[in-house]
Amino acid sequence: MKTNAGRFFEDYRLGETIVHAVPRTVSGGERALYHALYPARHALYSSDEFARACGLPAAPVDDLVAFHLVFGKTVPDISLNAVANLGYAEGRWLKPVFPGDTLRSESTVIGLKENSNGKSGVVYVRTRGLNQQGEAVLDYVRWVMVRKRDEAAPAPEANVPALSKAVPAADLVVPEGLDFSRYDFTLAGEPHRWGDYDIGERIDHVDGVTIEESEHMLATRLWQNTAKVHFDATNRPDGKRLIYGGHVISMARALSFNGLANAQMIVALNAGAHANPCFAGDTVRAWSEVLDKAETSAPGVGALRLRLVAVKHGAEPFGLRDEAGKYQPGVLLDLDYWALVPR
Amino acid sequence: MKTNAGRFFEDYRLGETIVHAVPRTVSGGERALYHALYPARHALYSSDEFARACGLPAAPVDDLVAFHLVFGKTVPDISLNAVANLGYAEGRWLKPVFPGDTLRSESTVIGLKENSNGKSGVVYVRTRGLNQQGEAVLDYVRWVMVRKRDEAAPAPEANVPALSKAVPAADLVVPEGLDFSRYDFTLAGEPHRWGDYDIGERIDHVDGVTIEESEHMLATRLWQNTAKVHFDATNRPDGKRLIYGGHVISMARALSFNGLANAQMIVALNAGAHANPCFAGDTVRAWSEVLDKAETSAPGVGALRLRLVAVKHGAEPFGLRDEAGKYQPGVLLDLDYWALVPR
Amino acid sequence: MKTNAGRFFEDYRLGETIVHAVPRTVSGGERALYHALYPARHALYSSDEFARACGLPAAPVDDLVAFHLVFGKTVPDISLNAVANLGYAEGRWLKPVFPGDTLRSESTVIGLKENSNGKSGVVYVRTRGLNQQGEAVLDYVRWVMVRKRDEAAPAPEANVPALSKAVPAADLVVPEGLDFSRYDFTLAGEPHRWGDYDIGERIDHVDGVTIEESEHMLATRLWQNTAKVHFDATNRPDGKRLIYGGHVISMARALSFNGLANAQMIVALNAGAHANPCFAGDTVRAWSEVLDKAETSAPGVGALRLRLVAVKHGAEPFGLRDEAGKYQPGVLLDLDYWALVPR
Repeated sequence: MKTNAGRFFEDYRLGETIVHAVPRTVSGGERALYHALYPARHALYSSDEFARACGLPAAPVDDLVAFHLVFGKTVPDISLNAVANLGYAEGRWLKPVFPGDTLRSESTVIGLKENSNGKSGVVYVRTRGLNQQGEAVLDYVRWVMVRKRDEAAPAPEANVPALSKAVPAADLVVPEGLDFSRYDFTLAGEPHRWGDYDIGERIDHVDGVTIEESEHMLATRLWQNTAKVHFDATNRPDGKRLIYGGHVISMARALSFNGLANAQMIVALNAGAHANPCFAGDTVRAWSEVLDKAETSAPGVGALRLRLVAVKHGAEPFGLRDEAGKYQPGVLLDLDYWALVPR
Repeated sequence: MKTNAGRFFEDYRLGETIVHAVPRTVSGGERALYHALYPARHALYSSDEFARACGLPAAPVDDLVAFHLVFGKTVPDISLNAVANLGYAEGRWLKPVFPGDTLRSESTVIGLKENSNGKSGVVYVRTRGLNQQGEAVLDYVRWVMVRKRDEAAPAPEANVPALSKAVPAADLVVPEGLDFSRYDFTLAGEPHRWGDYDIGERIDHVDGVTIEESEHMLATRLWQNTAKVHFDATNRPDGKRLIYGGHVISMARALSFNGLANAQMIVALNAGAHANPCFAGDTVRAWSEVLDKAETSAPGVGALRLRLVAVKHGAEPFGLRDEAGKYQPGVLLDLDYWALVPR
Repeated sequence: MKTNAGRFFEDYRLGETIVHAVPRTVSGGERALYHALYPARHALYSSDEFARACGLPAAPVDDLVAFHLVFGKTVPDISLNAVANLGYAEGRWLKPVFPGDTLRSESTVIGLKENSNGKSGVVYVRTRGLNQQGEAVLDYVRWVMVRKRDEAAPAPEANVPALSKAVPAADLVVPEGLDFSRYDFTLAGEPHRWGDYDIGERIDHVDGVTIEESEHMLATRLWQNTAKVHFDATNRPDGKRLIYGGHVISMARALSFNGLANAQMIVALNAGAHANPCFAGDTVRAWSEVLDKAETSAPGVGALRLRLVAVKHGAEPFGLRDEAGKYQPGVLLDLDYWALVPR
């Protein structure tokens, strides 16, 4: 067999590091496509001039471009036989990615736990995205439920890693040189600064986007994510293509510009759940909640910990879970992240 | 409220200048997307070599890329609460835009007139697109009908600016260095030169393109145009998404290559009307009429004033208005512009 | 008439060379779009670093980007009035194309044969793609059936060129500097080297992609291919848009990554047939057969001659022709090419 059938649960070994194919050089092309696929408007990623005025050498590609590229490479080795993408933790953006950079990914297995049904198990990996200098640009933990090839294969010793509920503010990495002390709020699009946001505050981002098949497929392929379910309408009895969860993340993040235009850079991913599947024809909306605030040592730079919730049109305003603690059916995404904001 | 509700009619003051967010750096990515979204083939914007042979340092991005980028930035401040986009006038392209340039926009309110119903009014703005050196690359007047927030708000003194019917040929700005004296008609695709076009001549551009939802949304987002009606299928009772008028402009201009391949550069926008709405599934065709001709002082460079009409499939050949002077139902766009053509 | 009606059979003269419009400069934008439109993952075209480790100055644009760009330019002169695209032969990639290069095309008529019905004829052309230094980057023969304008026009003397069944291995052009002796199989995505493939071996590439209208139109426009049938839903009684055969070629080639990840560079096109039309909604799958093997003089570089077959979902496994020798209805493409593979 020359083709890749993907790994099954019993193929993972605690502590092993998997080097993922295929490295990828990014250019202005990926940035332009990102701006065509999502209503992305954060000024730092849109304008070289704005980025330079904030102390960076040029505009990086959007933080989530780096995430999707690094994530996409892991799919053939980690989630080709995944039943579910269960969670994210301890994600940190460590260096901005610029056009011309080449990214690759590797993942270390940090936890394994077979399910009691003996048919599948949970694999925990810590994934690093590396640039052409071998510098880490992104680091995050993800865990997925993976089928066993052979149900009779013996279960490994259960190992569940201890993971932080959120990246401590002290561990956030502010890009070298970032300086918001002469930040241009007019060009950025909104006047609200770090001090204007209160913990517990919730923002309805108002706008909505109806999702098309071709757009989520263009996006998912752009990150070289090969999971069949996103592309092949013959894969499910209902003929639907499941939309890559990252497409919903990027859509919601871009929609959040309206109210969070100054939440310029995502620097940490504390947690994330793809609460319900998204399909073409759904109209996606988003709301946010301020979970925490922190200062940083960089000039003029504060951090907001934000919950970003993507919902389908018609969902209950600011609704999240039902009384039993389950996500409401209209909720697509519940994401917990830290962003850098001018003070 | 952290989100932008847009300005209402009573929020505009005669003479005020509004600086628009978000600046944008363009690259080869925007050019490639433009060529994927439209059947654009004008050689000066397609080939660095062709552009150099015409005296430019490299191929600029298409003239309408500059227009859409500058226009898109104005939407959150000018037309978020617009009922209708009423007209354009006195538009001039002042400098080509090259990959690497960063564009921003600002608009000055040059006219205000409340409607007699007291519910809305017309706002006239002169918008300038500026590059990273602060040089104007584009300048045009647009007027829109905008709702009032409070119908009881007092009407401003009526001020309707005097606008030229067309940019005088003497005011056209030919890009520095442009020289068509060694123009390669074979590589450009057609043999017809300035002298081959007669005033009154009409050209049916033959080809048609059927419009898709994902394509007009990709285009509209690429220009960071945030108007809800283009993206949100829940926004209208009929579930349709209204297509950004600029998508029709670019489609018609690209279709006009077949017959006007040498109308290389748009340098002025004299007038424009979005005659009827366009929706996904419509098949767009185009025809042109030569309205005027002028010489320029640049070597080998003439100018044609052209009417570009976009129609839906099935429209009456060369039809424009009915007997009452109303646009025929199949007419989507009536655009009046000046283009530079080799003599 | 200012518009291009295309050439008819009687307009071609044996031996004449047609210089095609419009030259095109490629950038990272075209590469990014290619990766968004197809699940393309061959490492040499994805990563500058990988390409440099293989002796190239940077990652070229995908071999088929060069093919589509060169081909697209020929459409207005060769196949606007074509009834059928009959075949390809003697195709060779002669130089990689890099971002910044400008391509143009020219075709020489090497054969003409009127059909016995007197209504059409077959035109054979040898097309060359040239870069800005005038160097040939690609050279191939294509023949198409073209309508006559006037059935009474006299038939030219029949001339059918003698064409090789396949490019001899000795004539393959390996890009200057290419060196697979330190090839990184892990980053490339699969461990299989030249020696692991046997003549006669067949590979089912497993994955499938369901085709969307907007995607094939984006692709076809990107290559400035203007054939009406791909864009205009009013062109056929059934309202379908015929998908550019090259879209199927690229889709199948990208799907073949799964099993042929190391078939890095296409260097020759021996033959090709668009066996049945492809329409939006079809789910495309692919399989390959190893037809031949050859060594090259470049370090570590071998060559595989491969048959690449694109099929619709539900087609017979590895099925190609029926008993009468006709392509089975589920077969879309039968392509015969040489690729360079690490030994």
